[in-house]
Amino acid sequence: MLNRTFDQHINLAVTGLSRSGKTAFITSLVNQLINEGNGSKLSFFDPVHQGSFIAAKRVAQKNLSIPRFDYDRAITSLTSEPPTWPEPTHGISELRLAIRYQPKSSLLKYAADMATLTLDITDYPGEWLLDLPMLKQTYEQWSKQMHNLLTAAPRDKYAKGFLAKVATIDPFAIADEELLAELAKEYTELLHTFRYTLGLSVIQPGRFILPAELAGAPILEFFPFPNLIDIDGNDYQNASDDSFIGMLRARFIEYKEQVVKKFYRQHFLRFDRQIVLADCLTPLNACSDNSGPESFADLQLAIDMILESYSYGKSGLFTRLFSPKIDKLLFAATKADHVTSEQHAPMVSLLNQLIYSSKHKLNFEAIEMKTLAIAAVKSTNSGKSVHKGQQVSVIQGFREKHKSKASATSPSAEKQVIGEQTSRDEITRDESVREKITLFPGSVPEKLPETAFWQQSAFNFINFAPMSGMDKHQALPHIRMDQVLQFLLADKML
Amino acid sequence: MLNRTFDQHINLAVTGLSRSGKTAFITSLVNQLINEGNGSKLSFFDPVHQGSFIAAKRVAQKNLSIPRFDYDRAITSLTSEPPTWPEPTHGISELRLAIRYQPKSSLLKYAADMATLTLDITDYPGEWLLDLPMLKQTYEQWSKQMHNLLTAAPRDKYAKGFLAKVATIDPFAIADEELLAELAKEYTELLHTFRYTLGLSVIQPGRFILPAELAGAPILEFFPFPNLIDIDGNDYQNASDDSFIGMLRARFIEYKEQVVKKFYRQHFLRFDRQIVLADCLTPLNACSDNSGPESFADLQLAIDMILESYSYGKSGLFTRLFSPKIDKLLFAATKADHVTSEQHAPMVSLLNQLIYSSKHKLNFEAIEMKTLAIAAVKSTNSGKSVHKGQQVSVIQGFREKHKSKASATSPSAEKQVIGEQTSRDEITRDESVREKITLFPGSVPEKLPETAFWQQSAFNFINFAPMSGMDKHQALPHIRMDQVLQFLLADKML
Repeated sequence: MLNRTFDQHINLAVTGLSRSGKTAFITSLVNQLINEGNGSKLSFFDPVHQGSFIAAKRVAQKNLSIPRFDYDRAITSLTSEPPTWPEPTHGISELRLAIRYQPKSSLLKYAADMATLTLDITDYPGEWLLDLPMLKQTYEQWSKQMHNLLTAAPRDKYAKGFLAKVATIDPFAIADEELLAELAKEYTELLHTFRYTLGLSVIQPGRFILPAELAGAPILEFFPFPNLIDIDGNDYQNASDDSFIGMLRARFIEYKEQVVKKFYRQHFLRFDRQIVLADCLTPLNACSDNSGPESFADLQLAIDMILESYSYGKSGLFTRLFSPKIDKLLFAATKADHVTSEQHAPMVSLLNQLIYSSKHKLNFEAIEMKTLAIAAVKSTNSGKSVHKGQQVSVIQGFREKHKSKASATSPSAEKQVIGEQTSRDEITRDESVREKITLFPGSVPEKLPETAFWQQSAFNFINFAPMSGMDKHQALPHIRMDQVLQFLLADKML
Repeated sequence: MLNRTFDQHINLAVTGLSRSGKTAFITSLVNQLINEGNGSKLSFFDPVHQGSFIAAKRVAQKNLSIPRFDYDRAITSLTSEPPTWPEPTHGISELRLAIRYQPKSSLLKYAADMATLTLDITDYPGEWLLDLPMLKQTYEQWSKQMHNLLTAAPRDKYAKGFLAKVATIDPFAIADEELLAELAKEYTELLHTFRYTLGLSVIQPGRFILPAELAGAPILEFFPFPNLIDIDGNDYQNASDDSFIGMLRARFIEYKEQVVKKFYRQHFLRFDRQIVLADCLTPLNACSDNSGPESFADLQLAIDMILESYSYGKSGLFTRLFSPKIDKLLFAATKADHVTSEQHAPMVSLLNQLIYSSKHKLNFEAIEMKTLAIAAVKSTNSGKSVHKGQQVSVIQGFREKHKSKASATSPSAEKQVIGEQTSRDEITRDESVREKITLFPGSVPEKLPETAFWQQSAFNFINFAPMSGMDKHQALPHIRMDQVLQFLLADKML
């Protein structure tokens, strides 16, 4: 006890799967802490509840070569009129907070009036986390896994042309670098479609869609060779480095070494705590074009792949490498404000199911895990409405102008819309019309939905724009951000 | 002699100062070698002249993490109809050639039928080379040097607002990171203006205008603090790291460590030979707005700074660090096709003057230097025309559509244009009109021009578009590319 240092330090890593609202999350987390006391509601965050929290402020980050998380830009877009969601970040970024608190329940209180918790928040793309399992794969194994994805719904109909072209290549012929570059470009375009049009999470290799300084480098010019199954294992092993298959294999190996391992060493190893954000609602919505089950399967696969990186048992990834030191892992289902509050329990239950199906196979003794349904920035108000003589819970908010594909095409939209009204905000700046709607978005299933479930088309989660009238110097409205802080920070502020 | 290896290897670095045509140069160099025999004119390149050159081909580069130089895209734009200059490259890129030759004058000919010279061409921005002298500067010295530049023509009129804002900062106050970021952004915008509007070469820190993965990182958020002259040296030395001046200094130091030294270690150290391209004609043109002398002074300073990095004497940069191994350094004045051929001698003489003014101060014993006036891709034809009863040399070519500022505003344009005709090429694709002009662009001064010289407005170098009808499978027309190859490669192909 006497050796305990006064000041604490946490390296918090934040990442998210497709469209989960990572930038809004970090913005809200910082906002809640630096504006604590100014309208904040952090009752479940013990240091605030018990009065030991003093203040938090942003301080200069340590690593000057990592982009700064642009908090000011993000909070400005949330608090402008009309407010908009902040632009997503690209690649990695950092922000450091110094949190002052009064030590309560330890000897520390006799030694100092206050202590400082330094919180380094690192924001990085979910794709980088999903790349880690490649480290234990050979090019053969990876090709096979990608082949399975590319030939199954929903990727198959987009990938046909690419696969047909790859099928014409003689793997043992001398490689034509231009052809490789061309096919790699086509594969990269497929990944873009999967990520941005279909909203899928399993995008490998992840760096292909955010290349930064590696744009145009041979290390990003490879792709899975699906026909590997048909070629002789011995021939494959002995393929020369200048053959098509040899060059693809060499680049895959180099990608693992220079991109994946580099991320692992430079960043992943120093993280203490990790939060993974996931949007479980949008996949539920995808029923209109029958892509719901596949979107869910993709989310499940993504979560499996992530969990693999945090388990230290025999089947885990990092048994023999240096182990990461993460001791807390939080999965948060975002957009909890997009459903009525009694749906939060099923949301968590659904997320738990996604997680526990692979969790029981792995060893997480060293890691404390938690799941929460949250809204980093609450964009709706809830209330009651009468529908067909019955009182129902509803939410009210502003429909987002750029609707996501899934919600825009949902044929069942009119079913759940109970009251709808358009309020013309008198904003000449961009002549936007903010459409206010009130609706019951449907019930979230507690378990992974079955086929029959999808056919009922019972979901109508629409994307909401942020609420008007938020102030950058006050705490933003939220759902359960206090519980997020409690889990991630409270034990270091005793 | 017997220990001599059969195969040779050259790491050739290519860089250029503002608007010198680096991409066209590399494209032509590769094109001349891989199409040798197919219409090429390389009479001054001994291996071709003496018949020992066999063939060259592109092979896969070694370092997979460096972008490939996109030869195909560049040669396609040169050989399309209408042809256009290739898009400039950003950052670093690489291309490897394998050159087969028959050893003639060595024992090698008894040992093997042919040998291979592997040529690794690395293309990197001139700004990176110009950053190297920062390594021996303190933040104080650098600030002072930049202050001198920012308060002198042609930069002064653009920099006033920025300097006024910086002057209001108390250097010892606790730094406001947001303010630093804002001012750094303004400084970066100034650098963009200097580089792209004024066409200047001395742009420091060079990474600010091509940030790649460092965009938004604190390491690129500093600037010179011009008021350092007025503050006490002791106070400056003791300024805390979280003060404005302390933070600027820390970031400057980190920039040198993480950006400049990194380039030095990863790339500069392995170069064997370097070619620096410079456009000496455009600054001569800049007389109309009286910016000619200053453009020239900037070019002179840039060349001084470059030479500093290659001298190994007491006053050189790399006395104590590991010395680079460059043994040949070629300065090429590009766009020799933009003047008549009898002007090439004055062009070289002018370039020599720019170089030798600082060369005599430094020690280049270990390096063989050469200067040449070249055109990587010849865009004009030369001939004779009668003007006011006298026969004069003229050049004929297509005026480039996007004229540079200098040539577009030159008031003396009509003086030299002798015959002008517009030929409408029947290209519906982009409905472009290619304007063919014939002119005598003026005489190039043999020495650094004096004040009186600029007032005569005697120059009219216009930018030409590439000629039509070039074929990607034939050698491109050029001026002295064979002498470039002779200097850079011939001694390794004996």
